Order: sequence, then C-alpha cells, then structure tokens
Amino acid sequence: MVNVGIVGGTGYTGVELLRLLAQHPQARVAAITSRKDAGTRVADMFASLRGHFDGLAFVAPGPEALRGCDVVFFATPHGVAMAQARELLAAGTRIVDLAADFRLRDPAEFERWYKVPHACVDLLEEAVYGLPEVNREAIRKARIVGNPGCYPTAVQLGFLPLLEAGLVDTDHLIADCKSGVSGAGRKAELNLILPEAADNFAAYGLRGHRHLPEIVQGLNRASAGPVRLAFTPHLTPMIRGIFATLYAPLKDPGADLQALYEKRYAGEPFVDVMPPGSAPDTRSVRAANVCRIAVHRPPGTDLAMVLAVEDNLVKGAAGQAVQNMNLMFGLPETTGLGAPPVLP
Amino acid sequence: MVNVGIVGGTGYTGVELLRLLAQHPQARVAAITSRKDAGTRVADMFASLRGHFDGLAFVAPGPEALRGCDVVFFATPHGVAMAQARELLAAGTRIVDLAADFRLRDPAEFERWYKVPHACVDLLEEAVYGLPEVNREAIRKARIVGNPGCYPTAVQLGFLPLLEAGLVDTDHLIADCKSGVSGAGRKAELNLILPEAADNFAAYGLRGHRHLPEIVQGLNRASAGPVRLAFTPHLTPMIRGIFATLYAPLKDPGADLQALYEKRYAGEPFVDVMPPGSAPDTRSVRAANVCRIAVHRPPGTDLAMVLAVEDNLVKGAAGQAVQNMNLMFGLPETTGLGAPPVLP
Amino acid sequence: MVNVGIVGGTGYTGVELLRLLAQHPQARVAAITSRKDAGTRVADMFASLRGHFDGLAFVAPGPEALRGCDVVFFATPHGVAMAQARELLAAGTRIVDLAADFRLRDPAEFERWYKVPHACVDLLEEAVYGLPEVNREAIRKARIVGNPGCYPTAVQLGFLPLLEAGLVDTDHLIADCKSGVSGAGRKAELNLILPEAADNFAAYGLRGHRHLPEIVQGLNRASAGPVRLAFTPHLTPMIRGIFATLYAPLKDPGADLQALYEKRYAGEPFVDVMPPGSAPDTRSVRAANVCRIAVHRPPGTDLAMVLAVEDNLVKGAAGQAVQNMNLMFGLPETTGLGAPPVLP
Amino acid sequence: MVNVGIVGGTGYTGVELLRLLAQHPQARVAAITSRKDAGTRVADMFASLRGHFDGLAFVAPGPEALRGCDVVFFATPHGVAMAQARELLAAGTRIVDLAADFRLRDPAEFERWYKVPHACVDLLEEAVYGLPEVNREAIRKARIVGNPGCYPTAVQLGFLPLLEAGLVDTDHLIADCKSGVSGAGRKAELNLILPEAADNFAAYGLRGHRHLPEIVQGLNRASAGPVRLAFTPHLTPMIRGIFATLYAPLKDPGADLQALYEKRYAGEPFVDVMPPGSAPDTRSVRAANVCRIAVHRPPGTDLAMVLAVEDNLVKGAAGQAVQNMNLMFGLPETTGLGAPPVLP
Repeated sequence: MVNVGIVGGTGYTGVELLRLLAQHPQARVAAITSRKDAGTRVADMFASLRGHFDGLAFVAPGPEALRGCDVVFFATPHGVAMAQARELLAAGTRIVDLAADFRLRDPAEFERWYKVPHACVDLLEEAVYGLPEVNREAIRKARIVGNPGCYPTAVQLGFLPLLEAGLVDTDHLIADCKSGVSGAGRKAELNLILPEAADNFAAYGLRGHRHLPEIVQGLNRASAGPVRLAFTPHLTPMIRGIFATLYAPLKDPGADLQALYEKRYAGEPFVDVMPPGSAPDTRSVRAANVCRIAVHRPPGTDLAMVLAVEDNLVKGAAGQAVQNMNLMFGLPETTGLGAPPVLP
Repeated sequence: MVNVGIVGGTGYTGVELLRLLAQHPQARVAAITSRKDAGTRVADMFASLRGHFDGLAFVAPGPEALRGCDVVFFATPHGVAMAQARELLAAGTRIVDLAADFRLRDPAEFERWYKVPHACVDLLEEAVYGLPEVNREAIRKARIVGNPGCYPTAVQLGFLPLLEAGLVDTDHLIADCKSGVSGAGRKAELNLILPEAADNFAAYGLRGHRHLPEIVQGLNRASAGPVRLAFTPHLTPMIRGIFATLYAPLKDPGADLQALYEKRYAGEPFVDVMPPGSAPDTRSVRAANVCRIAVHRPPGTDLAMVLAVEDNLVKGAAGQAVQNMNLMFGLPETTGLGAPPVLP
Repeated sequence: MVNVGIVGGTGYTGVELLRLLAQHPQARVAAITSRKDAGTRVADMFASLRGHFDGLAFVAPGPEALRGCDVVFFATPHGVAMAQARELLAAGTRIVDLAADFRLRDPAEFERWYKVPHACVDLLEEAVYGLPEVNREAIRKARIVGNPGCYPTAVQLGFLPLLEAGLVDTDHLIADCKSGVSGAGRKAELNLILPEAADNFAAYGLRGHRHLPEIVQGLNRASAGPVRLAFTPHLTPMIRGIFATLYAPLKDPGADLQALYEKRYAGEPFVDVMPPGSAPDTRSVRAANVCRIAVHRPPGTDLAMVLAVEDNLVKGAAGQAVQNMNLMFGLPETTGLGAPPVLP
Repeated sequence: MVNVGIVGGTGYTGVELLRLLAQHPQARVAAITSRKDAGTRVADMFASLRGHFDGLAFVAPGPEALRGCDVVFFATPHGVAMAQARELLAAGTRIVDLAADFRLRDPAEFERWYKVPHACVDLLEEAVYGLPEVNREAIRKARIVGNPGCYPTAVQLGFLPLLEAGLVDTDHLIADCKSGVSGAGRKAELNLILPEAADNFAAYGLRGHRHLPEIVQGLNRASAGPVRLAFTPHLTPMIRGIFATLYAPLKDPGADLQALYEKRYAGEPFVDVMPPGSAPDTRSVRAANVCRIAVHRPPGTDLAMVLAVEDNLVKGAAGQAVQNMNLMFGLPETTGLGAPPVLP
C-alpha cells in the first residue's frame, strides 16, 4: 500500500487525484494540505466525495503534514514543489509535481517563462519528465517526476512517431489545440464564467503560452534537432478534454503513417491508435486515462495531419500522475486506471 | 461470476450498463443483442469502449443469443421485455427490465399509458418493482425486476419519508423536475439537437408524462392511500442528471424532517441525506449510483421542500439495474458501483 | 432625442442597455461612467460593440459626468442610485434604477434585506415600481423608476391575473424558478465558472433570496391581501433566460384561465399569452423584450400552473428599463424594442 | 419596398432570414414555401416569431407561390434552386441561393462534389458569387447570386489579403476551422443531439468537405494560381459561430500584415480588422453580420496566422444574403443589418 500525500488539493487536478485514488487498490491518501482550507473535510468541499475519504480533512502545509508519505503529489501552482522538494526527498518521500517546476530541463528557460529563478537546479537535473511513453524506465527509478502539462502530453504523443522516424519537415510544425475550460484551473476569473465562455470559441495565449517551451523541448528530443512550432491554444465551451490537430509537411509522401503509429504505440496501455479514417472526439476519453490518436493525409496536400484527444485532467494531469506513481512503486502500470470513459 | 446478457445495447442505458459492468468484478457480459447492428463490434460503435469488451459484438436477437445467461437486462423500448420474458424464465434466466413493462402493477394502467395490452399479466404479478430502498428483500428473490424510471426514482426517494410518516397533505404534492437531455434517449429527434436544446430551458409532457402513473403508484403505496400529484418535467441543457424539487404541505409544522430523512435512509448505500441547509447539485452525482437528498422548509410557508438529485443513467437506470442484479445474485449490493462521481 | 447616461456600464445589464440603445432611434448615449475603467473606450471592453458607440468611453463617476442627461440608468449594485438620486433630480434628470434601491416600498424591508438603511426615504416614496403592465400611467410621470428584478418580473406577470381575479388560495403559492447564469451578473465567482456551472443544475438562495420581498410586495398588491409564497431559484446551465413554473391551488376549478390571461394582457405589447397547451421555452424570447406565458391545469390536481419565460437581461432588466424610458419620455412604448428573439 | 420570397423556410437559414427581414425597413416577406408544412403559420412553427409576420403562413412550392416577388431566397438543400431558377428569372424575379447550386463555376466540379449534374449550366455561367468584398459591383447587377457557404466566407475573407498581395507560399495553406452545431442545419441526426455534441469536440469531413472546392476556387482566384489547402472542419459545442485559424508560410517575414489587412478592408462595412494582438471570439459576432479578423505572427516561426470569426447563420448565410439583396436593389448595403451582436 502506497501512502500518498497531496499538496494543494482544492484545484481540479487535486480533486481529480482524489477521484482516481479512491478507486486505487494499492494506494491510500494519508494526507492532503491546503493553506486556506485547513480543517475542512474533503467531502465538505466536494460533495461528490461524500462517502469517500470520510475521515480525510485538509491540513495546513508543512513538514509534519506529509511525514510518512511514500509519495507526494503537488497539485499546486508552480513554485511550490521546488520549495519543498529537498526536505521531502531527505525524508525518503518521492515526488510527482503536476505543476511546471520539474518539466523544463533548462533552468534559464524555466526562469524566462515563469519569471522566478529555479530554486533547486541540482534536483531539476535529477528529475525525470513523466511521459511514460518516452521515459518509462527512468520514471521507475525517479525520486522526482515532473508530470507533463495537458497540451504537451497530447501534442508530444501526437507528433512523436513522425519526429522519431524523421519523416517530416521540422521547420513547419503546427499544433492547433482546443481545450475545455477546466484546463484553466479552478479559478474565479471573469473570462471563465459560463456567460463568457459558453456558446463561444476563442483563441488565447497568442504571444506565447507556457506550454510552448515544454512541447518544443520534447519535440527537439524526439527529432534530435531543433523544431519550429506554431502552437495555438483555443478555449472551447466544454468542461474537460483536449483536442490537438497537428500538421507537418511530409518529406516522403509515400510513408505508411498508420503502420508507423501502430508500431510505435504497440503495447502502450494508454495510447490508442485508432483505425484508418477515424475521427476521434474528446468524449471518447472523458474521465479516463487514455490518449486516442488518428493519422490522416489531408487530400491535395503533402501534409501529415494527426488528431490526438485526451482528458486534460486525466491523461493530461492526474491520471498520468497516478500512472507515474504506479511505475515508481513497481505496481502494474494500469492499476486503478481501468475505468472506461464516461459516455455520454 | 454472473453471466449477463443485454438486449438492445445501442441506447444510453445499454452503453451505460456496459460502462458499469466493465468495472464489475463478479459479472461478465456474455452476449449483447441489436437487431440493426448485429455483427458490429461494441467498441466500433462506442469508441469509449475500445480496449474494453474487445471480443464483444452485437448479435441478432433471438433465443439462441442469450442462452446460458444468468440474467438479461432489457435496455429497450417498452414492449420488448414482456415479449421475451416467458422464454427466458423457462431457461432459468432472470430478468431486469429497464423499460416500463414490469413497473406498473395494474395491466389496465399499463395499457392506458402505453397503448398496448400487457403481454404476460401473470408475470407482471410476479415481477418486483426494483427500488431497493423499498423492496430489497423481494428483489433478492425476484425472477423479474421492473427497474424504475429515472424521474420515479428521484421523486419516490424524495417523498417516501414524508409519506410513510404521514406528515403531509397528500392532496397537494408537487414534483417540479428537471432532466438532462440523455433522459430522452439516444434518438435522432429535432428537439434534442444541440442548437434546439442548448442555451434553452423548456417544459414538456404537460398533458401527462408516462412516469406519472409509476410515481403515483409508489407514492400511493408509501402513503397507504391515494395521493394527488402535479408532476412537471422540464428539459435542461445538460447531458446527465435529474433534479427534483418536491413540495408538500406539512400537517405538523414542528416535525424534525432532517432526523426523519436521516433515519429512513440510515444504512442505505446509495441514498445520501445531506446536512441541513445543503443545496445539492447534479454534478455531485454525475456518473455515480447515488441519490442525494436535502430537506428544507421554505421561509414563510407551511411546506416541506425536498431536493433530490441523481444521474438519470445511473441511479435512474443502469446503476440501479446493476444494484438489483447484485441483490438478485447474493453479491454485496455495492459491488462494481463504488466509483465516485466525476467532478468537474 | 433623449440624452441617456449610464452609471456602471461594465456589467451585463449595462452592456445590454448599450446593445438596445444602439438600435433606438430616439435615444443617444451621452455618457457612461465606470470608476474602474474610466478612459477605456466602450468598444475596447466589449468587442461586440466595435463599430457602434465609436466615440464613447467610460468616464469617472461624478456630477459633471452626467450633466445634461435627460435620464440616467443605474446598472450598478444596490446603494449607488440612492446615493446620487437627489442631485440628479435637482438637475432635472430622471432616473431608472436597475438595482434594488427603489423597488421595495418599505424602507425597513429594504434595510432588512440589503443590510443598509435607505438613503432617501422621501424619494423612495415618490418612486414608481417600473412594471408597465401594472403601473403604466404612473411610470409616464415618474421622476424615479425602480426597474423590477428579473425573477420578480416573470413571477408577477405569471401570477397577476390569478391574484387580481381572486381565483386562488394565496396561502399556498409556489414559484419554482430557473435562471441562466448571466442572472448572477458579470462577476468572477467560482461557482459561476463554466466547469462548475455547465452540465449541472443546482438550487441556491434557499434561506431567502433578495427577490422574495419584491415578489411578495407585488403579489400582495395584486391580491389585495398577504400571500404566502415559496420561491425557489435554481441555476441552469445557459447564458440567458428565466423560466418560472408557478403553482397555485384554484378556489374554483371551473374557471376559464386561458380567457382570463388573454383578457388581462390584451393589448400588452410585451406579454404574450400563448395558445392553450403551449410549452414555452426560453430561447423563444432570447435577446428580446417579451414575456411569454402559458396557463395549464396539471391533470389530477386542483392546481393552476403557469409557465412564464423571459430573457433575464431584457424584459428582466435592460429591455424593461428602455420600455420605461419610452413611457417616461412620451415615446411609443415599443420604440427600439422591436427586434425578434434570436433563435437558434 | 422589395417583395421577398423564401423557398424552404423551415431550416436555420430560413428562420434567420425571417429574423433579419423582420427588421428590414425596405423589404417585406411576401411568400414563404415549404412542401411539408404548407398551411402552418410561420409563428406557429417558430414561437420566437410570434408577433412578427402574423399573417404569414407556409405555402406549397410552385410557380404561383412566388409570383410577384422581386427576389427569391433559396434556403434549401442543394438542387432546388437550379431546378426553379429559369422560371423565376423569366418572370423577372431575381435569385439569391443560400445553397451550393450557384457557387462553383465549374459544372464538372459541382457534379463531382454533389453527385448530380448541374441543371442549368448557362445560368451558372451568368451567376455571381455573392461575396461582396470581392464581387460587389457584379452583385449589384446580378440576376442570380450564389451566396457563399459559411466556412468559405470566413476562410476567404481571412486569406484574401495575403493571397492577393502574393505574400505567402500557396502550396502550404492550412485552414483549421471550428463550427457551432447550427452549421449542420436543422436536422434530426444522432450526432447532433445534445448528449452527443455537448461537452465534446470532434473533427469531421476528413475525406473532403463540400466547402473545400468552393474555398479553393476563391483562393485560386485571389492568388491568380492554384493553391494547396488543408481544410479541417471541427464541431464545437456551441449553437452559432465559426472560428477559422488560418496558417500560411510567409515569403517575406518583414511584411506589415496589420497594415495590409487594414488597407484591404478599409471601408468594408462588415469586415472588422481588429487591433494588433487581438484574440477574436465568436460571441463578439453572435447574431450580427460581421466578420472580425486578427492577424498574428506565431513566435519562432515564419508563418502568418489569421483568426477570422463570424456567425455562420449571419455573415456565413442569411445576413450575407440580405447584404447581397441590398446591393442588388440599390439599397444602402447595411440596411436592416445594423443590430449589434448579442453578448453575452
């Protein structure tokens, strides 16, 4: 039984961790912290959890709170995990950070995008980027896992086979991405309220979204050279889900892309390469830890087009975090993650 | 292991049964029928089920199709279960009908509302109404269970404690109910398409909805006398969920309603009486087999007001059907039904 | 040409006033104030208004700002209009308050619900409640109009004919109301963000909503005696619209309710009594200044049931305010309000 | 006063024509036809139109029905307009077809995509493509106008300045488009019902959407040479709106795109080039006849990215049709089209 701590459990990734861990037979939530809501029972904040975690209440953060945890998930804004990591590691606790502190390898790049210096560059060096489809073995042994962002998971899984095989012109990659509103977090912001966000479709982050360097880092690694990527995030009026429409000019128009993708992801428990001609939709992955991918050749062009869908809170956040935990603790990778998507 | 057959698995209650049974450790889906889609793999129709039920395909209906099933769920329009019930029972198969064939005790009432005579009045007499909170012991032994409708589940669970205790004037009951659109079924109807149903709120069924006699039958039983009920269904622009706002004039304004409800539902695994002052919402039960109830006294009135929420496809349909199956086969009642609601 | 000032134009009632006044041939917006956004052009805050009001920018509030206006609309929280009313009137400017300062006749009642003493009791006495279907002649001459709340408009218009005719038991009135989220205002609040409010249905304000005393005041007047009302507001996942389902026990079950309603509202330009058996929906009034009403007799009961729909931002707020302005300035009542609803 | 006939007025473009013409001071709807609903009053089918068009009922199609009309709008599936065009022209009636019969210049291309031969190739030759920003003068004199499709309007207006100026590599154009569900028409189809389409995002038409040849025809003309275009339509869970995200590799990265767009569309009443850095959203054009465009340079790339939004039923259909009618009859182009968008 893995003893789990959660730091910052009042956001959407936190409550999603609770939902998933409630069904996990080999993990139990030993502690959950929240500065603002210490003393509140988890089930009093989230009525959906009544009858689950009945004894669990938020406690104030601090070293005592997480003592004895085998692993701590940080479901916090950036900056929190790097401030607490050293102490936790010293106590023998391993870390999965769902924020950005351990995603970018380059501390200068981190500082450029997050406007604070990195607090523990040595640990950053040790940390493993938690995309199991790329780093599975390293994750098993990692003390710190930087859990990927929601957009980066979908975009990387979608592009990787093309880049690893060197089939496309990496100077002209496009990731046209659409996200449900929960991707923005559980925050009281005007542009997120239903009368603003419903029956509406909008682009945002056009001057550079923080997920851009993370994506580029992963694509550079896969292509073994620098890529140029246009990454356009859009907000679509739904609760959960990311839809990534990816375009890349093919060097060899005759390549068998379907076979390439099927081979690359053969045996992957949480990546589903759909049959030729498929049009994935986000509801086919709602609430489940899976990324579905379809590969297309737009008629009349020399492009490859890849459609990748995921639930931003599951394979794009909390589900992938649990998947990483399973790897880190020698559990079968799919433990606790077997529930089918919720449709309709 | 319970061998399960599903008749008519292409509607929302059918696919929801599949979703729930995929997680059920003591049941396996042995056969699923569909006249129109025989030969299609289940996972080809519902991409959400890819990786689950991989060997399962729809087969044409008929006695062969369901041979060897311990229980058959009818996720069909009314009229199908009563046509096949006798043969299945003869083969030793038990039945849970998610449609209306075995809900109304009075065959004349059935004929009045469904415009066809009942096909097997003797079996109707034997059938048990599948509301475990009322009929638990009878369900355990039943060969045929008439699984309650979605509105009737919420309205009955909401009213029962008041009626059983004789606390209200049963001549002036009101059930003002709001349903998500999936309650209308997986049907290509103009009023259900998104541009008609979204950003819209409408009443319907004002001349008499088919769930009215089912509700009245249950309330009459609980109050041991005839009730008069105004039942107003409304369509609200969401996928899943029923919200029932119930009003009844109190005979004794001093009654402790909170205690009454807590006592009535103590120990019930799937009815959650919320703390005093609570305002339940449908998302707190989304995708889970639970009915949450809050009891109120509107200021300045002599009314009791009860708010009851459920997921129309789970506690209002497929989840309750699995709960009934668990009872019928001596399994713990909560088997396979433990996943928390999906929030957000 | 009526010179219009708007105080507090950055909320939903403010921007809706701008939308409606853009189409009004006899009014022009001379000034619009906002403390926070002074200096910002209106069309820079609301892209929908680009090309309209091109010269108009928010100015800081203050007596100078509104000098020369024939009428000032207060699209503010409560408390603002009563603080500025005296000065405006002294300058010959008339007032339409879309907040609550001039709705409740009784200053003690105002203080009880709004937690501040009323700032100008004499003006409150003079003010006219701006429901044209009740107070048309008084509105024409009024210097101050208290524009009704959104729920109160729908509930009063729905109940009035029954109460004025003395046909119902006024001790057991029920108003089960459903509102789109814009009714809560343009506010960054957590429960209003799309992932909380979409695919969800919730009750709120169960301890007493501020619109309750306003509704009761109007119903008391209509029935010439005190009524008892249960008023239950619910939040439904749509942008605009109010749906009121009203119940009242009939004293005389033989009354011709359809004729009663048609007669009461004959000639009313903005109340539409629908044919017998109709089920109104909110989209049939979206963005238009109309309240549609259908009257029903739920089968098996002695109740009258009235269904009333309106757009909370139009007939429930800004549209009714313009209707009142038209009356106050001797314009045809429908001026600028003729555009049909937006459907779909 | 222009006497207007509408053929096929029961779909979304038909009812939108009615909504817009209700506000048009120089046009009156003289006749509206529907095979299926002949005899039904327009306001009985669309409650939103109660109080407008009170004398207007659907009549059976046929030459008599439209006698005396100055112009007839075809709001029908393809194939209807070309069957009736000759007779109407002979009677002196002009035609605006909102379907596809008069959009594609090449009858072979029409037959290839619509699977029927074109019925009147000579009239096709005479017809004018109704994009006023390109063909204004020809439209004024046209007897037949082929009103552009919804996607083609947004994509062409978005790309035109770049192509006309020869600034981009026309071999690698991408139009990643997102449409609200009303774009699919008022049809009872399973994939359009709310439980399928809400809280979901999907691609469709991946083997070639019928709007592709229309778009390519327009882009070829603008670039004076053949373009290669990937056009990916997606369905987003909203009622109205199209959002087009367009990508094109710049030949000259130093070009001043903002100035280019502002100059190209200077004086255009219904194309709004937004300020640099803007992120348009579809609600800023909801229910109004405007296309808003923002031009961007994605960081780190050599691409131009253009964001274009419109209401698919207005500038993408009925509004543009009225704009064309205004031109054809010598009215000011903006007549009847001045209402601001509906926000929220």
